[in-house]
Amino acid sequence: MEKVKCILSYDGSRFSGFQIQPGKRTIQGEIEKALKKIHKGTSIRIQASGRTDTGVHAIGQTIHFKSHFALPEANWQQALNTLLPGDIHVHQVEKVPDTFHARYDAVEKEYRYYVWHAKEWDVFKRNYMYQFSYPLNLERMQKACTYFLGEHDFTTFSSAKATIKGSKIRILRDVTCTKIGNKITFTFRGSGFLYHMVRIMVGCLLDIGQGRRKPEDIPELIAKRDRRLLGATVPADGLYLWQVDY
Amino acid sequence: MEKVKCILSYDGSRFSGFQIQPGKRTIQGEIEKALKKIHKGTSIRIQASGRTDTGVHAIGQTIHFKSHFALPEANWQQALNTLLPGDIHVHQVEKVPDTFHARYDAVEKEYRYYVWHAKEWDVFKRNYMYQFSYPLNLERMQKACTYFLGEHDFTTFSSAKATIKGSKIRILRDVTCTKIGNKITFTFRGSGFLYHMVRIMVGCLLDIGQGRRKPEDIPELIAKRDRRLLGATVPADGLYLWQVDY
Repeated sequence: MEKVKCILSYDGSRFSGFQIQPGKRTIQGEIEKALKKIHKGTSIRIQASGRTDTGVHAIGQTIHFKSHFALPEANWQQALNTLLPGDIHVHQVEKVPDTFHARYDAVEKEYRYYVWHAKEWDVFKRNYMYQFSYPLNLERMQKACTYFLGEHDFTTFSSAKATIKGSKIRILRDVTCTKIGNKITFTFRGSGFLYHMVRIMVGCLLDIGQGRRKPEDIPELIAKRDRRLLGATVPADGLYLWQVDY
Repeated sequence: MEKVKCILSYDGSRFSGFQIQPGKRTIQGEIEKALKKIHKGTSIRIQASGRTDTGVHAIGQTIHFKSHFALPEANWQQALNTLLPGDIHVHQVEKVPDTFHARYDAVEKEYRYYVWHAKEWDVFKRNYMYQFSYPLNLERMQKACTYFLGEHDFTTFSSAKATIKGSKIRILRDVTCTKIGNKITFTFRGSGFLYHMVRIMVGCLLDIGQGRRKPEDIPELIAKRDRRLLGATVPADGLYLWQVDY
């Protein structure tokens, strides 16, 4: 058996998220369907660095699977891309040692979130950016980003619906906010992310950008460990799993 | 009764084209549904500058309709945008004299066609550009563009399936091809366009860019008035109705 690692991108807008679900079109479902064809009917289970929700996109999602086929890496890539639909694409294939695990071996992840900051609705951006038309103070948001850096218990910034029981401590190493033209890019790089964490942080940063809250409020919000202190989770459309490092 | 002109954009990827058809999601169908709601159940017919095919997008499609409501222009825009789905957006509303007709009064139209020229498939561009990976000579294509300029019978460059009987003479005033990064933009501006005309011209220009044909072949191709001389019509995804002038 060989272990194969793949880096893939997908446009999440026509998927019911990553995880396989009966009767729904999911990224895992499409990849496992392609692998089953390659393996002449034998089901192959894939493992990803993590799931993504309905509507969330990926530039560098990483998965692994095991196969008894000894195909060269380029052939794996071609076989998968031939069978996958146009909204999933495998960018890179690498054979990895049997000890490799796409989820447990991930040491750092990067997410990006795009906000299209304009008065007028753009039909072409509706699935790919969060369209926001209220005034925003970029400098306030940039200052606020710095308060997320370091090791914190991010309970305040995780979904109340989250079912995981383990520690909610995560380390963020890079949190930035830049604007070019109408496009605001939020970048988050860290040891890991809780359920809805990026989307709740962006919602909080947009509140700060609108003057509803101060950058200096963040340490206290973190300390209180209470999701109810914050406003709405921003939509999935603007969110991209950008890179996973091993 | 008042006559109202609207300029609208739409993302054509989830529509079965512009024209209303029973049981299908079309741009005309969605706009007339919104107008029916505004008019409390009375059906209102719209007239467009022309139809667009399945998958074709618009930046500046123009329509008109008649209404017995005397709403200010801004209110029309707001009412329509509130009721229309996210993939159609009204950019401008203007009251026009009763003699105005969105189709018959159009004096010039501009179409653009985007080619994404790259080796690797991009999942985010699949509905919005034609992804092309073979080598292309830009200068040859640019030279070829100039042969389309002026008044010609474009029978060779119109779909054999076209049912219109009238003249196939059209005047092209601007035909260009530019490349920025991986993105090639073809621009066509003229008195009018036959069915599939832009997509057949782009197919021919890509043949020339690949060296399968010479720029100097175009005058002869035009003169022969035979669609069978040319290769495939390029996909709808890269085509945008950019502007209609009155």
